[in-house]
Amino acid sequence: MSSEKAYVNPHVVRAEYAVRGLIPARADEIKKEIAEGKGAHPFTSLVYCNIGNPQSLDQKPLTFNRQVMALFDAPFLLEDEALVARFPADAVARAKEYVDRVGNVTGAYTDSFGYDFAREAVAACINERDHHVQPEATMEEICMTDGASGGITMAMELVLGGLEDAVMIPIPQYPFYTAQIALLGAKTAPYYLHEADRWAMQADDLAAAYNKCMEEKKATPRLLVCINPGNPTGGVLDRKVMEDVVRFCYDYNVLLLADEVYQENIYAADRKFVSFREVVLSMPAPYSTGTMLVSLHSTSKGMIGECGRRGGFLNYTNLPAFSREMLSKLASLALCANVNGQVMTALMSTPPQKGDASYESYWAEYNGIFSSLKERAALLARELNTIRGMSCQLVDGAMYAFPQITLPARYAEYNEAQNKKEGRKLALDARWSLELLEATGIVVVPGSGFGQEPNTLHFRTTILPPTAQMERMVAAIRDFQEKVYKDYA
Amino acid sequence: MSSEKAYVNPHVVRAEYAVRGLIPARADEIKKEIAEGKGAHPFTSLVYCNIGNPQSLDQKPLTFNRQVMALFDAPFLLEDEALVARFPADAVARAKEYVDRVGNVTGAYTDSFGYDFAREAVAACINERDHHVQPEATMEEICMTDGASGGITMAMELVLGGLEDAVMIPIPQYPFYTAQIALLGAKTAPYYLHEADRWAMQADDLAAAYNKCMEEKKATPRLLVCINPGNPTGGVLDRKVMEDVVRFCYDYNVLLLADEVYQENIYAADRKFVSFREVVLSMPAPYSTGTMLVSLHSTSKGMIGECGRRGGFLNYTNLPAFSREMLSKLASLALCANVNGQVMTALMSTPPQKGDASYESYWAEYNGIFSSLKERAALLARELNTIRGMSCQLVDGAMYAFPQITLPARYAEYNEAQNKKEGRKLALDARWSLELLEATGIVVVPGSGFGQEPNTLHFRTTILPPTAQMERMVAAIRDFQEKVYKDYA
Repeated sequence: MSSEKAYVNPHVVRAEYAVRGLIPARADEIKKEIAEGKGAHPFTSLVYCNIGNPQSLDQKPLTFNRQVMALFDAPFLLEDEALVARFPADAVARAKEYVDRVGNVTGAYTDSFGYDFAREAVAACINERDHHVQPEATMEEICMTDGASGGITMAMELVLGGLEDAVMIPIPQYPFYTAQIALLGAKTAPYYLHEADRWAMQADDLAAAYNKCMEEKKATPRLLVCINPGNPTGGVLDRKVMEDVVRFCYDYNVLLLADEVYQENIYAADRKFVSFREVVLSMPAPYSTGTMLVSLHSTSKGMIGECGRRGGFLNYTNLPAFSREMLSKLASLALCANVNGQVMTALMSTPPQKGDASYESYWAEYNGIFSSLKERAALLARELNTIRGMSCQLVDGAMYAFPQITLPARYAEYNEAQNKKEGRKLALDARWSLELLEATGIVVVPGSGFGQEPNTLHFRTTILPPTAQMERMVAAIRDFQEKVYKDYA
Repeated sequence: MSSEKAYVNPHVVRAEYAVRGLIPARADEIKKEIAEGKGAHPFTSLVYCNIGNPQSLDQKPLTFNRQVMALFDAPFLLEDEALVARFPADAVARAKEYVDRVGNVTGAYTDSFGYDFAREAVAACINERDHHVQPEATMEEICMTDGASGGITMAMELVLGGLEDAVMIPIPQYPFYTAQIALLGAKTAPYYLHEADRWAMQADDLAAAYNKCMEEKKATPRLLVCINPGNPTGGVLDRKVMEDVVRFCYDYNVLLLADEVYQENIYAADRKFVSFREVVLSMPAPYSTGTMLVSLHSTSKGMIGECGRRGGFLNYTNLPAFSREMLSKLASLALCANVNGQVMTALMSTPPQKGDASYESYWAEYNGIFSSLKERAALLARELNTIRGMSCQLVDGAMYAFPQITLPARYAEYNEAQNKKEGRKLALDARWSLELLEATGIVVVPGSGFGQEPNTLHFRTTILPPTAQMERMVAAIRDFQEKVYKDYA
């Protein structure tokens, strides 16, 4: 009867989410201490590189999108001529179009799958992106979601019933996946990405991971997660590798979950984004007609960076009728995605066109953000590669670098002694990340939070700090790592 | 390998959500047929009474909230003096205050629990509502959620690990609950609400339901759901009954989930809203200090009716430290509630004050909606009670009536014959609701979708159609029911 013994779901206890885990929690404490003038920290502010949250690090929102959103939120403003005159004509026209499509009702529940106008916009954008591969996407295959994470949850709920079901996940992976799998009480079937091969997967590994899961965990992989461009790796897949993945999914009857939220974040000159949808539909039958695919996108990344809107969509291909029906049920159980996220997703799918009043300014903003991200991606990898005990693949895409670190042997002994003293079990890279934070105020996530090849150490950092800040950040990491090497030589 | 045999999570197959189930799905088909000029329907438009979605039935949003939202969404508008002059001063001041509080960053992920300014606004509003019962609520106990449904999911995930865990739910209940319980693979421990007693529960029933679940289902109730004001019942609980519920939850160490989304929708002269938080904290120890409570609220109902924003909050009381820690983890896994919903929740918690530019107009709008809802609540129950084979409790609160229907014996025989012919198993009230839809265009939800005492039949209708439409609606139900009695006498 003592509530101190309150029961807690063991799946929740097991779930871990490093991106908002130990290191960021300590960072928040330090931030508070600094604000209150407490503690003696050798820095005056923190650099949050733990989460892909661009607008929190000075990335400006695209003006046109916000103008339309404001008018959609308060449609009565459209009747005020003096006010409307303060907006560009295309923003007003777009807001009017959306408001008309929803019958002037901009705060009600939408259909379970979302606003028709948003789903149509997404379908048109997908067809353009995928070079009109046949059959073209229609709005029936589009469900608006609260961010891509809403889509991940739906796809997982669709096929994971419990301990006898598993999900094939890349290692390293985005820990939202392992956390959701744990919550659903299912198992993981990990397959490794090859760091030296620009973080690509290999077909043989997939089959081996599948069989290992069946044999050792007695669980059937129902879903294969592929994050492209990669989080945390920054890798961009080559089309040939993608075809291997598709063949595997078809052959093993596994639903392919393509997490493509970074599809606009491609920096490598020799890579371009190709969607899994285009790959699947361009292959010969039966792959083109029988590979089950759920693709996800979001308004949180790209150049739009509207993380807090929780906008996104799920697009399915080759899903059998009964699965579609069950997906509809899941969507209806979620009532509907939030309307502002839906509007933002429609806007992301339909930027201003040539001749529109906002065309020049929109693309100037967009391209400004893109070149700055590209510059920072190059700068970060280049500089990290000049630091002792650190090597980093080029950041081909997405918003992250995942450098490998090597540490002096005595640092491992030190960590063991500290763990004993503190009564905890910090992994070696978690210790390193924690001490980096205490010494520099830089918040990164240890590689152990994402998974990594045995006997390797990594950390993930975003490429999001503004250039000048990133230069200071790299210098601080360099000094820290030099000190580690000096103190534990 | 044939994708037509794709695996689907059996929990999803089992889950049911009648509010968006068979009847609304048929309604959508009919709507499409009418739009395309197909089918021969004896009406030209549908009256959707299946879902509490007020703005879709002509309820206007509160202007002040939308003004602030628009400015918050595009903070650069605040720098345009000519534009700002088109807004009331208090809307501008409020938007500036919120924008300042978030450092001009209105699109980024927020902290897992939400914006500080919103959580502070909610805590202040709760303390006011609960007559400053001690200890006062603080923002630490408030987590912003995507609608109340986000809070329901979090609370359930916190304590439901699987088949050995159960949730005590009222019968009739809001089917979102049974659906979520099914998805989580847990069990239900139903307790009945007493129709003749204005839909109140009885303490003895709670203990009996608990024991029955332990013995027959071998599952431990971890959570007791209490919806007050009631959905679908329209009942409002008396304080004495609430104290019984609290004592039960304390004695049996069950987490009390208080779904209080209709707290502003009270129409009965002899009832007022008292929160479970106030009841718990006003009781003597150990009830006041040891009863675990999670209370939910939402921006979807009340006079605000902004369902599509997915705004809401979860407020916990007496939750032990480890449970709080796990709740924080769950919140971090959900990233954050959407920012527009958070802003709307802050606005709901802090209406314009006396002396503010929008004070008069805000309360005129608010009171206009309230009196209209109250009028429709009274009208609906009064009229339904004059229909043959129909009896309806007064609608004391919320947005629904849940009338009981009796049907001629031959209608049951007819349903059985029809089911055999159609190869399906429609419950008797589902048949009635379906035929009501086909005959009149009125969309209600059969009582079997909510659960009901054995051998009784009900349906749920919202009180949301505008008055004139509601009068036509009641007349149509009357004619339909008369015809049923005539045809199956």
